[in-house]
Parts: sequence; C-alpha cells; structure tokens
Amino acid sequence: MIKDRLDSLRRVMKEKKIDYYLVPTEDPHGSEYVGEYYKCREYLTGFTGSAGTALIWQEGAGLWTDARYHIQADRQLCGSGVTLFKEGEEKVPSLYQFLEKNLQEGQCLAADGSLISAEAAQRLQEIAAAKGALLKSCDDLTKEIWTDRPDRSAEAITLLSPESSGKSTGEKLTVIRRRMEEKGADLLLLSSLDEIGWLFNIRGKDIPMSLLALAYGVVERESAVLYLQKRIWNEQLLAWAAKNQIEVDDYDMIYLDLSRRAQGKRVWADRERVNWKLFTLLQKAEGVIDEISPVEMEKAIKNETEQKNFRRAHEKDAAAVIRFLFWLKTHVGKEDITEIRAAQKLEEFRREWDSYLLPSFEPIVAYGEHAAIVHYSADTSSDCLLRPEGFLLMDTGGQYREGTTDITRTVALGPLTRRQKEGYTRVLMGNLRLAGLTFPYGCSGENLDLAARSALWEEGLDFFHGTGHGVGYLMNVHEGPQAIRWRHRKGSFVTALEPGMVISDEPGLYLEGEYGIRLENLLLCREKEKTSFGRFLAWEVLTLVPFDREAILPEIMEKRDVRLLNDYHSTVRRKMLPLMKTKAEKDWLLEATEPL
Amino acid sequence: MIKDRLDSLRRVMKEKKIDYYLVPTEDPHGSEYVGEYYKCREYLTGFTGSAGTALIWQEGAGLWTDARYHIQADRQLCGSGVTLFKEGEEKVPSLYQFLEKNLQEGQCLAADGSLISAEAAQRLQEIAAAKGALLKSCDDLTKEIWTDRPDRSAEAITLLSPESSGKSTGEKLTVIRRRMEEKGADLLLLSSLDEIGWLFNIRGKDIPMSLLALAYGVVERESAVLYLQKRIWNEQLLAWAAKNQIEVDDYDMIYLDLSRRAQGKRVWADRERVNWKLFTLLQKAEGVIDEISPVEMEKAIKNETEQKNFRRAHEKDAAAVIRFLFWLKTHVGKEDITEIRAAQKLEEFRREWDSYLLPSFEPIVAYGEHAAIVHYSADTSSDCLLRPEGFLLMDTGGQYREGTTDITRTVALGPLTRRQKEGYTRVLMGNLRLAGLTFPYGCSGENLDLAARSALWEEGLDFFHGTGHGVGYLMNVHEGPQAIRWRHRKGSFVTALEPGMVISDEPGLYLEGEYGIRLENLLLCREKEKTSFGRFLAWEVLTLVPFDREAILPEIMEKRDVRLLNDYHSTVRRKMLPLMKTKAEKDWLLEATEPL
Repeated sequence: MIKDRLDSLRRVMKEKKIDYYLVPTEDPHGSEYVGEYYKCREYLTGFTGSAGTALIWQEGAGLWTDARYHIQADRQLCGSGVTLFKEGEEKVPSLYQFLEKNLQEGQCLAADGSLISAEAAQRLQEIAAAKGALLKSCDDLTKEIWTDRPDRSAEAITLLSPESSGKSTGEKLTVIRRRMEEKGADLLLLSSLDEIGWLFNIRGKDIPMSLLALAYGVVERESAVLYLQKRIWNEQLLAWAAKNQIEVDDYDMIYLDLSRRAQGKRVWADRERVNWKLFTLLQKAEGVIDEISPVEMEKAIKNETEQKNFRRAHEKDAAAVIRFLFWLKTHVGKEDITEIRAAQKLEEFRREWDSYLLPSFEPIVAYGEHAAIVHYSADTSSDCLLRPEGFLLMDTGGQYREGTTDITRTVALGPLTRRQKEGYTRVLMGNLRLAGLTFPYGCSGENLDLAARSALWEEGLDFFHGTGHGVGYLMNVHEGPQAIRWRHRKGSFVTALEPGMVISDEPGLYLEGEYGIRLENLLLCREKEKTSFGRFLAWEVLTLVPFDREAILPEIMEKRDVRLLNDYHSTVRRKMLPLMKTKAEKDWLLEATEPL
Repeated sequence: MIKDRLDSLRRVMKEKKIDYYLVPTEDPHGSEYVGEYYKCREYLTGFTGSAGTALIWQEGAGLWTDARYHIQADRQLCGSGVTLFKEGEEKVPSLYQFLEKNLQEGQCLAADGSLISAEAAQRLQEIAAAKGALLKSCDDLTKEIWTDRPDRSAEAITLLSPESSGKSTGEKLTVIRRRMEEKGADLLLLSSLDEIGWLFNIRGKDIPMSLLALAYGVVERESAVLYLQKRIWNEQLLAWAAKNQIEVDDYDMIYLDLSRRAQGKRVWADRERVNWKLFTLLQKAEGVIDEISPVEMEKAIKNETEQKNFRRAHEKDAAAVIRFLFWLKTHVGKEDITEIRAAQKLEEFRREWDSYLLPSFEPIVAYGEHAAIVHYSADTSSDCLLRPEGFLLMDTGGQYREGTTDITRTVALGPLTRRQKEGYTRVLMGNLRLAGLTFPYGCSGENLDLAARSALWEEGLDFFHGTGHGVGYLMNVHEGPQAIRWRHRKGSFVTALEPGMVISDEPGLYLEGEYGIRLENLLLCREKEKTSFGRFLAWEVLTLVPFDREAILPEIMEKRDVRLLNDYHSTVRRKMLPLMKTKAEKDWLLEATEPL
C-alpha cells in the first residue's frame, strides 16, 4: 500500500521534474499537532508519530525522526521501502547531511512552501546552492494521489467572554501596537494559531486538543485583519469584528493579500514561525524585523482573570485525579485494569465536571518498562494489565472552560525495590526544589534547572527532556517562549521569567527495560517580595494532587525537602478535601497528605 | 593641579581640533591592571580606581565609573572640576548616552586608538556617525603634557621550565594551529598579555602582580612571531626562539609589520580584545574571524603539570593563611592591629615560603563596615583598629613559583549577632553547595550559579558581583572565558566548563554601613564519572583553609551542608596539619577543623 502511494507520488514528481520531495509533519502554521488533512507524511510512509520528516526520490525514500519514535517507526516502516534514519544516533546522517551528500548539480529539491518555515527553507536553499541544485516551492503533491483525503477542518469557533479572556481584543491590540511602535514595525504578521487565538479571543477545534482554529492575522497601526475560513463565519463573529474594528477575510486570501499590504512597510515576522510561502510575499516590504513576536511574549503572561480561572481548573482536575488515584490504589490487582482502561477511568472522573471539554493532549498511561519510553502511547497491541507491584506513570491533562491542565503522577501499585524508591525520591526532590525556589527578577529557566536535576546528577542520573515547558491558557498545552532547561541553544533567545507565566515542573528518571518515573506540577510565577537586594519572584503550585508517600525514602531527603513536601500536602488537603465525594475518598486523601 | 593638567590638555585638543578626548583605563592589550606608564586617566583626573573612563572637552570633563568606586571617586574628584557619572544609578547617562546627547554635527571625538578595543571603537563610530560627528584615532595626547611621566615598563622576562609549564611552546603551537585550521584561519593575532605569556611560556613584571610582559604575538601556519621590547632581549631568549623556530621582533614593530603580514590572509582576531589601531591594520586581510581566541580557551584548561603545581601552591598558601588566622584570633584585642598591619602580617607568613614571589592582586583587608565596600582597599586615611568583635574580611592571594592563589576568608574577631551568623552561614552554604555539585559535561557557569545563591535568595538576600572568575596559572588572577554568574549577557558566548579549568567560588553578602561577608575557595574542574546517563564533572577544592566555626549557625544548615563542611574540614586537617610549625598552631587547626 505504502509502496503504491510512493510510486504514484514518484510519477507526479517525474512529470514536475522534481528529484527530491520533502514532506515534513507540519501545517502552514507550524502547529505542534496537525489536523487529519495535513497528515501527508503519515499517508505517504505509514508512520503515525507526531514528529518526523520524509524525503522521497525515484530510487528510494527516507524518514527522519527522533529517539522518542525510533521503536515505533522501526515497526511501522517495516516492509514499506522507506528507510528509517534514527536522528541523534551516531553515524546516522541528519536530513541536511543526507541532502549535502546526495543532491547532484542541476537536480531539483521541492517542498510545499507553506509547510516549512522560512528559516528551514533558507537552510535548505544554502545546501542546494552549494551543490548547484535548486530548491523549489511547489504545491502539495500529495493532493494529486491522496483520493480519500479528509477535508481541511473547518470547525465552528467560539468567542471568549470577558470572564474567560480577562482582556478584550481591543485592549490586547493596544499593547501589541505599543510593542510594534517601540520596534518601528508598521505591520505584524501572525501565523501561529495560538497567537491568533489569544489576540482575537477565539477558540476552535481545527487542532482539536489545542482548541485552535485555522487562521492568519495581520495587525497594522490602524487596522487588523483576521483571516478565517469563510464557511465558519457567522453573524456573532461579524458583529464582534465590526464592533472591534477588525476586518474579517477568507483564510486563503492572505496569500493574495499580503504582498500588497506589506509593500513599503516595516514588517515584523519571525522567520522561525512564518512559513516560507508567506514569507516570500514580504519582498516588497521596506524591511523585515525577524524577532520573536510580541504576541507570543504577551500571551505567556497570564492576566488576573486567566490566573483565577487557571486555579479553578486545577482544583477541578486535581479532584478528578485524586479520586482516580484512590480508585486505582484500591482496585489494582483485584480486577483487570489495563493501561487503556486506567486512562478511560481517569477520563470518566474528569468528565464528571460540566466544564470539562476534552483531554489537552494524548494521555500517556504507562506501566513498568513502558514508562521508560518517554512518549509512550498505549495501543491495543501494547496495552498491558496492571499488576499490584512497581510503578504506573500517568501524564495526562484536560481542557476545562476555566483553563488547561497537565499533570504527571507516578504511583506505586504495590511493593517497590529500594532502588525504585530512591529514584522516585530523587525525582520528587527535584520537583519540590524547583517549585520551592525564590529567585531575582531576570532569571531564566537556564539558571533554575539545576534545582530540578542536582539530586539526580549527584548519583550520575539524569533525564533527557526539558524540565519545564510553558502552558497556554485554554489552548495548546505547550507554549513558548519560557522554558526550564539547562542547555543553552546557540543563538537562542534567553527568556527571563515574568510574573504571570505558567510553566511545567516535570523532572523524571527512565531506566530502559525497567521503569520510568516522572512527577509534574504546573507552576505560576508570582512576585514574592521587594527587598533592598531587589525584586524576588517565586512559584505558586497550581497542581493539587498528593505525591505517593509509599514511594518515598525519607532518609535521603534534606530537612527542607521534607518541609516543602509537607507544606504542599497540607495545601492539597486544605483545598481538595471539600471536593471529595465519599468518606472513603476523604479518608484516603487525609492519609495521603499526612506529614512525613 | 588637576585643573592645570586639564587646561594644558585642552590647549593641545584645540590645536588638534579635537572637541572631545576620551581617556579609558587601558593599555594597548586590554589588561585588567595597567602599568604606571598607562595611568593617563589617573594623571588627568586624580581618580586612582582600577576602572573608569574620562572624557574631556573645552568646558568640562567627566568620569564614568561603576558602583565599586562611587564613594572613592566622589572623594577624589572633589574640587577637580571633573564631574562624576555614577554608572548604574538611575537617571545617570552612560558615556555612550552622554555622547549621543552632546556630540554636535561636525565635531571631533578622539581617543588613542591603541587604548580602546575595535569593538568599543565601532560603537563610538556609530554614535558619532549618527550625529554627523567624527571619531578619530589620535596619538596619546597626555604625552605632551605629562612631563614627569614614568617610562614604559621593560622588565626582564623569565622563560618557564618544562617542570613549570607542562607543555612546550612547540606543543602549544601545534594545538593552536590545529584550531586555526579548523576555522580556516591563516594568521592568529594575539594582543592579550596572558595569551602571549601562556603560548610562549614567558612571564614578566610589566604588569607586576599578574607576572605579564608587554608583548604581541602573531601565529601563522608555518611561522610565529613574538614582539618584545628590544631592550629586554637576551641570549637565552634568542637561543630558545631559534630552537623553537620563533621569530623575535621589537615590540613596536607590529604596527609597521602587521598590515603586510595580514595581506590576503584569513585573520583570526577578536574585536573585543584587539585594540582599534591594530585592528585597522587588517584592512587588506582576506577576511577576519572575529571569535574568542583559541589560546584563551586552551590556556584556561590546565594541564597535569599545572594542576599538580597549582595544588602545591595552594598547600603553601593555606599554611600561611592558617598560621596567620591563628595569630590573628589569638592577638586581636590584645595588641594594636589595624587593617594594614593585618595585611602585612599575612604577607610575612606567605614570604616564609621560598617560592613565594608577590601578592597576586592588591589585598583587601576590611573590618566591619569597610567590608561592605566590595573593592575596599585600606589606605592610611581609612585604616582602622581591629576590635575583638564583628567580622574581618580578607581577600588576598599570592604568586608562588608553583602557581597563583586567591582566597577570601571572613572571620569573627569576637562576639557576633545572630543575624551576622545567619548571613555567614548562608554565604557558607552557597560556597559549599557550588563546590559540592556534580554536573553533566556541557554545563556552563550560568547553569550552576543557583547553587551559590539560593540560600540567600530564599531570604531576599543577594550579592552584586559574579560568583566565580577563572584563575590563570602563574599569571593574572582573573581569566576568561569561564565564569560562574547567572545573568546571561546578550550576545555573549556561553562557555561550557571543561575538566582542567580553575575557577573561584566566592559568594558574599554586604550590608552597607554594617559589615561584609565573602568566602572564596578556588575550584578545579575534574572528570567524576561516566554512567549510562553521560559524562559527569565535579570540583576539587584547591584552597585548604578552615571556615570559621564560631560564625556558623548549624541549625539553618541542611544535613548535606554539614556533611560537605565536615568533609572539607577533614581534608584540610589531613593535608595541612603537617605544615603547621608549632604545637599551638596544630592544636588550633585541630579545633578549627572539628566536625560540626
């Protein structure tokens, strides 16, 4: 099947004189998750992972993906004729290195220009130029062979109420225009769906779990345009737009419109986020300010309303998770519970809340050695029965009308070895220490990651993912620009943490073939105090679910770690006890939050 | 007197049609401390601090200096007609802002081009250009009015033996040429005196406490030139040079020579370190690689011989400091000891070692509130009597034939308040925690500073200097590129810590008008272990002097802090007891290193 598809594609490539065709996992907005319509890479290769790039040529095809997906891709590509290139492994060429080696003079490398960023295109262009080859932006070739392709999603949108957004689009535009003025920008080009969702206070379902709608946006000093698919326009939207002096235009019109709009203007457009096709329409602009968008920065700083709602969403979510944990702990080993069943059960507890909408990402419920695969997702072939021993790791989250949650708990389903407990305790120490920090204004996540990792490093242990990602409000669960990670990316922008930012705190420990541990809370950055030594910030922990006392080895903790844990458990008890439904749940929570 | 000097200078400026004359605190090598000959800024303004820039114009004169020197500059500039601009204070314009505001179209701003870096010149040029003014490189105008100016220093140099350097110049050149090849550089221009001292294994006394000689260096693929003042050439030097295929030329010849040498070559020259006059001689080069010099990086990584010698130097230095501390603790309040007398006494203990050469920097011995001035230096007007109460801070170091030391101890001279003890203990916790870290290869000082500061931040306390600077081997006590500091400087290069680097660990706490605390050890970066999670590094503490148990509040320390302190004291006891000279000293050291 895959072979047939690739052969059909190769015929189209031949007609169009394309030697190499590149198929990334992207939509025109650089979204982390893409709608069904944009799953061309999956259609062409059969690999279903959320990250990877395919390259097709007459004699072969390749797929590049990172360590999270090596096992899955190995299995899914078997017999497809697609060669797997395991990114990050020694002696495996990167896509760029492969092209540098194989592109010949006079050949043509092509990609749908709307599916790669201007930044990536520039890199490919340099490689092609060095070999005397050509990089071409073409239409989406998959269109011609994918006969039963789903339609592009065009779900209804919702306009957020002031109680939900906290700030009107008008107020937000005022701030953004001030930032534009400071930079001398006449026009701001927005193509990231979360930025558009935030600025225009709209939510959608085109990227389902992220609550985002397909859209583009343009902000000028005196006008603003929201490009949305015409078939989802409605009276309420048009009335809102008229009232707020916002033009609404058809989604695809931006490609006809932008060049004229940009002419003679100083345009703010981030090459890493704007797609290549769109970026090339800026040629008549007077200049391009290639910096992180002011919307991304403003969006990351939650306003008072958003903070208040966030807290409420987390209380509701914590109630569901605590009740689920009680159920799990009291039922495991007594009835047949598999990973998938556990995930369903947790989802049921969440659905008891009226304001619960849907999961905020694909849940990870991983037992035993499955949990050592960082992005494990149980399917019918891998789903396994939970036994009353060892660890179960659950990384899940919900979208509530009040906001977005993301929580990981790893719990003991029965007896643990001392080594397992030590691992759990060191991860817990990292989680508590990061959340327990006080730090001066100006610090970035690169300065703070040490707190989450030093208890592991001390023993030669570590984990190979970031410690913290930003979390969107009632939208995508991963947002920038803030992050907690120690490694500085060359040329990357260092983001100082600002009061109002929400970030995850999720250290872990993964032993291949044995088990995985991750403990994740969401943190809200807040002002702590101003002293003669400056302005100090600290974290408020939004997530309110106990850690597992059965997995803790108190003797390796410091006094302060114990105090931080007890303080956290005391807060959880106080806030969550009223939300338990049965006496048994209450009793369990009381026991789970006893001081160490 | 100052007024007369400035008026004479203004006459020269008028003749030369110079409207603003800039006088930095620099020599042509960007040295941190400069020889007497280069103290033009001091001659013209009367301000003796080690950092600051003067600007002179017909109607006035200004001096810009940082917070370390505000009090001193205030006093020294009083009545001189020179306006003090306190850098870092609100509403005080920086030098650049001042020029942006005051430079007029057609005016001429000038400076001795050999005394500002190419980087600084570019910035000034941009400011001048924006105002339609001109930046001009001129001769040193001070020459024409400073009649009793000392000669430029031309002290004899020493060639390091292999037992001292660990690596011959030939071996070092091989490594440097490999780096040049990797970057595609044909010629490497060296103007930092420590880089030249390291590469050619020479030491001098032109910058006395840093053991550096005035010199330039040029390395090409097949040749190397060392530019040294002709009057210090000797037979031994010329024989060594001939044997190592190094050309020796006269110091000033580089200005006549470089343009021809650079012609058509790809030249490696760091704009931040090479002076403007020299940099302009690269105009006929085929290209300039403006990156941190490979010598700076290689120099920072101490070889086995250097490490061994460093350890020995620190043992000798620790013996002197411990014996001094015993003397101080047993004599204070019983005889008249002032800050200066204490410094002399410590120097006497150091001088008992044959291999001791001289202090590695101007010692800071500061009692009580004096210690709150970070770069306090006692003079006859400020020198005060030590009383048997409160804190004495001593930041001193020595140059030994085996290497360079730098140590700060703050000790209780008698009773302390609880608040003083708490401050001392939090600074101590920072010192111990940084030194006690294990961290993966790839970490930079920006990742680690948290360990030194979090115990202070927790209480809204902080200190406003870096936590750690690199330390040169048998040369300047401050070296780059490694550093421990949390604040990322925009556009600055992030240096991963490498095994073999030596760095200081010196957290502090300063309460204006009350007291100051700083505790400094030097740390050597070493391989710790390789596990399945990667390669981990840790520190060896080179400095071997007990902390003051009388100043510690054990109840605010964590278990691990106590363990780190006891482990350190046990090492100090084991290594230093044999170097004590009297039974009383031995007994005191035993007591001082008792476990908490």
